[in-house]
Amino acid sequence: MYCLRHSFRKTLGLNLFHHENISRLRFHHSIAQVYKEQEYGTRISIKGWVKALRKMKGNNFIDVSDGSSHKSMQVVIPKDMSPENLSYGCSVEVDGTLDQFEKGQVEVKADKINVIGPCVVADGYPFQPRKSYDADYVREYLHLRNRTKSFASLLRLRSYVTHHIHNYFHQHGYIHVHTPILTSNDCEGAGEVFSVIPERIPAPEHLSIEEQKKLSILTYAKEVFFDEKVWLSVSGQLHLETMARSLSKVYTMNPVFRAENSKSRLHLAEFYMLEAELAFLSDIQHVCNPIEHFVKSMVGHMLEKHGEEMEAYRKVCQVDNIKDLETIRDNPFIRMSYNAAAMVLTRNGFSVNPDSGLSKQHELFLVKYTNNIPIFIINWPKEIKPFYMKQNSTDPNQVLAVDLLCPLVGELCGGGLREDSVDILQSTLYEKKLQTKLDWYLELRKFGNVPTGGFGIGLERFIQVLCGTENIRDVIPYPRYPHHCKM
Amino acid sequence: MYCLRHSFRKTLGLNLFHHENISRLRFHHSIAQVYKEQEYGTRISIKGWVKALRKMKGNNFIDVSDGSSHKSMQVVIPKDMSPENLSYGCSVEVDGTLDQFEKGQVEVKADKINVIGPCVVADGYPFQPRKSYDADYVREYLHLRNRTKSFASLLRLRSYVTHHIHNYFHQHGYIHVHTPILTSNDCEGAGEVFSVIPERIPAPEHLSIEEQKKLSILTYAKEVFFDEKVWLSVSGQLHLETMARSLSKVYTMNPVFRAENSKSRLHLAEFYMLEAELAFLSDIQHVCNPIEHFVKSMVGHMLEKHGEEMEAYRKVCQVDNIKDLETIRDNPFIRMSYNAAAMVLTRNGFSVNPDSGLSKQHELFLVKYTNNIPIFIINWPKEIKPFYMKQNSTDPNQVLAVDLLCPLVGELCGGGLREDSVDILQSTLYEKKLQTKLDWYLELRKFGNVPTGGFGIGLERFIQVLCGTENIRDVIPYPRYPHHCKM
Repeated sequence: MYCLRHSFRKTLGLNLFHHENISRLRFHHSIAQVYKEQEYGTRISIKGWVKALRKMKGNNFIDVSDGSSHKSMQVVIPKDMSPENLSYGCSVEVDGTLDQFEKGQVEVKADKINVIGPCVVADGYPFQPRKSYDADYVREYLHLRNRTKSFASLLRLRSYVTHHIHNYFHQHGYIHVHTPILTSNDCEGAGEVFSVIPERIPAPEHLSIEEQKKLSILTYAKEVFFDEKVWLSVSGQLHLETMARSLSKVYTMNPVFRAENSKSRLHLAEFYMLEAELAFLSDIQHVCNPIEHFVKSMVGHMLEKHGEEMEAYRKVCQVDNIKDLETIRDNPFIRMSYNAAAMVLTRNGFSVNPDSGLSKQHELFLVKYTNNIPIFIINWPKEIKPFYMKQNSTDPNQVLAVDLLCPLVGELCGGGLREDSVDILQSTLYEKKLQTKLDWYLELRKFGNVPTGGFGIGLERFIQVLCGTENIRDVIPYPRYPHHCKM
Repeated sequence: MYCLRHSFRKTLGLNLFHHENISRLRFHHSIAQVYKEQEYGTRISIKGWVKALRKMKGNNFIDVSDGSSHKSMQVVIPKDMSPENLSYGCSVEVDGTLDQFEKGQVEVKADKINVIGPCVVADGYPFQPRKSYDADYVREYLHLRNRTKSFASLLRLRSYVTHHIHNYFHQHGYIHVHTPILTSNDCEGAGEVFSVIPERIPAPEHLSIEEQKKLSILTYAKEVFFDEKVWLSVSGQLHLETMARSLSKVYTMNPVFRAENSKSRLHLAEFYMLEAELAFLSDIQHVCNPIEHFVKSMVGHMLEKHGEEMEAYRKVCQVDNIKDLETIRDNPFIRMSYNAAAMVLTRNGFSVNPDSGLSKQHELFLVKYTNNIPIFIINWPKEIKPFYMKQNSTDPNQVLAVDLLCPLVGELCGGGLREDSVDILQSTLYEKKLQTKLDWYLELRKFGNVPTGGFGIGLERFIQVLCGTENIRDVIPYPRYPHHCKM
């Protein structure tokens, strides 16, 4: 089947590469592989970064990490073989033999070691050996932060979490849909969104001078390229609703954006939302059930499959959240109406304003009140929730919405049934004074309508719960928040 | 472990829900489940949309789809039980018994059927039964497009593709990293990017009137919120390079954005890029090898595991690309230098301008020339490629970059080794007159440096290749391109 004309090849002496190169793919072992597969006495080759250096009498000892595992590999180097520029932070390649030392631990006896890239702390490297730094300091160096033990561990855990999410939803029959980032719907009517404009803005020459005068340059800029105002998505839910009306069960896990001027430990301008939408749901409990099942599955999976990495992270970050996780995994979640929650809060000295919902303080109190068992708060005052929530047939001032409250973060997840009556939707849009371009959304209800419901889980907050991480800026690779968009 | 104070509960008569609701989760069967698990004679319950209606003497027959499979389920309804508003496009719930009819096909004998939401084509539903529509027409109705057989099939295939990508990279030891969408790096120095500004722009009161005069409102708007200009990412590569320098093997699959005024069948303003970066790569062949392995694995997986769905899609879209896919799966990819490719083109009557690289016409000719076997084009003129590509040590006017060309789309993938010399990088940035804030990028090379390389594959183009879809707008749920950002 090799079809390139051979005669032609010969004639021109073309520089065609041979395919045997493909077999050269595996040229060294990852440290995770070594721990998993290799036997004592095997010759191995590893490449990575020096995380610790101990000089002993006859030998130097280094801990090498390549990021494939939370475990580094101890390498023994005879003193006379040790390169001069071998130091904390440098990158090395090591050939040697896998050996066993005390307690059944393995190490590599090096017979060849080479420093690939040196690291001189005095030249401005912000981390020093045997020192621990607080998260605020480490976060100043976003491009080097992943070299710390704690953040490398967090990145692996985040990767395992996202992979399990995809596996879980596929196994449960959901279709993954990429909801758009650029949208001409200002989804929830909130003004705290980002606008998108092309960097190079052509002069509005097609407009008459009079028209140009009417138009501010900003307005014009916002409508160029797409011919209309375009924002960054705050949620993929409306788009998922479209999809659920033919695929039945859909989910997305995309970045969403809020231009809120918040400096809290729980908010970011760019974060990820796991959102799911299911058709044929007619009871708010049917929204709670899949949320509870998923959250428990996630916690159980991480404890069972990634317990060692989680423990390593907890140790280096001095976090102790294992009991919280077991509580989430092992207990049925509490389900409580908004009115009941408001009564609990009032009885405990809080004042609750039904127009503004629950504050973070309220949320965290409620979770504490149930001994850290997550709580679903169900049936909310209409005014607090977005226009698309379904009216409660027994109380038109209530909507069939739900929030899930968890330890550490409070609100982890929001969801609900969606209003499927065109008439109610239209009057709500009118009441809420929403200027929206939602004809298409109403049309979904006109043709082959079905009741749908769904939920959205903030991925970063979920990782905070799983890892016990206080600040949301420390569970995302490149946190964006007011005054911060480095790199 | 149920810890809410019972006495308190009683006192207030709180509306606490019972947990037995969780077992109510499975209230009907998906059609995929029915085909997979159910036996003849079983009582089943399905919900979905009517895709076809045939009226016979004693019975009506409908095909019901719930999107869980490319197969719909035939339902037999005794005429006297058939609801009046049963029609093409409506949503139904059906109870009945699974039965076998000729050729070993299954059907449901309904004993109860209910129309959930009617569908009256005359009220403006854009699709009619037994009619086929071209993609341009269907695309006008983005909110209903997923109800067509072809696009529902495409969405399932796209979901399988993304899931396999995550599985593949996890199995091969890569860590998934969410690279940022908002960035203050104008990555490749190209001007065709989108700027991001908050929708609500506060008046620049902290500036003196003189300062305000100097500042155009547009410039100000761009620097508010983050204190600097922020763009939508065109690539996650630079951020991945950071991550590869501690995790060794990383990948991302995030949306990227181009403000190009292109109306071609191969470009979008918002699309997805699968990008991978590997540490310790020192040969351009080591970049080609994982690309080839991944592309073949993907094609093999889709043919083997999702062959039926792919065939269903090909049939309804009248596409015939099965031979192309087998060619990709079964043949070693061709590897050819840029110079050799230019010679082939010149000999065949094309004119090649080394400053502008290969045109789409060139790319497609080369693929045709090799009988649809994908070709790696290696070692490119420096001027064509971005600043970060590694200089060829034997020819400083060349960089060690690679493009992979495929049938239907031409360039599917671009990659290369990254320049790891600070000196060369600095002089390239100077030569290319790039005003960048890349101190951090240079610093990566200063501390524990290692050679890295990687690649980026346009997800939509890959789906085009896999499905044989001519237009890129038909492989993404919500296509965004000039003058088009509906919903």
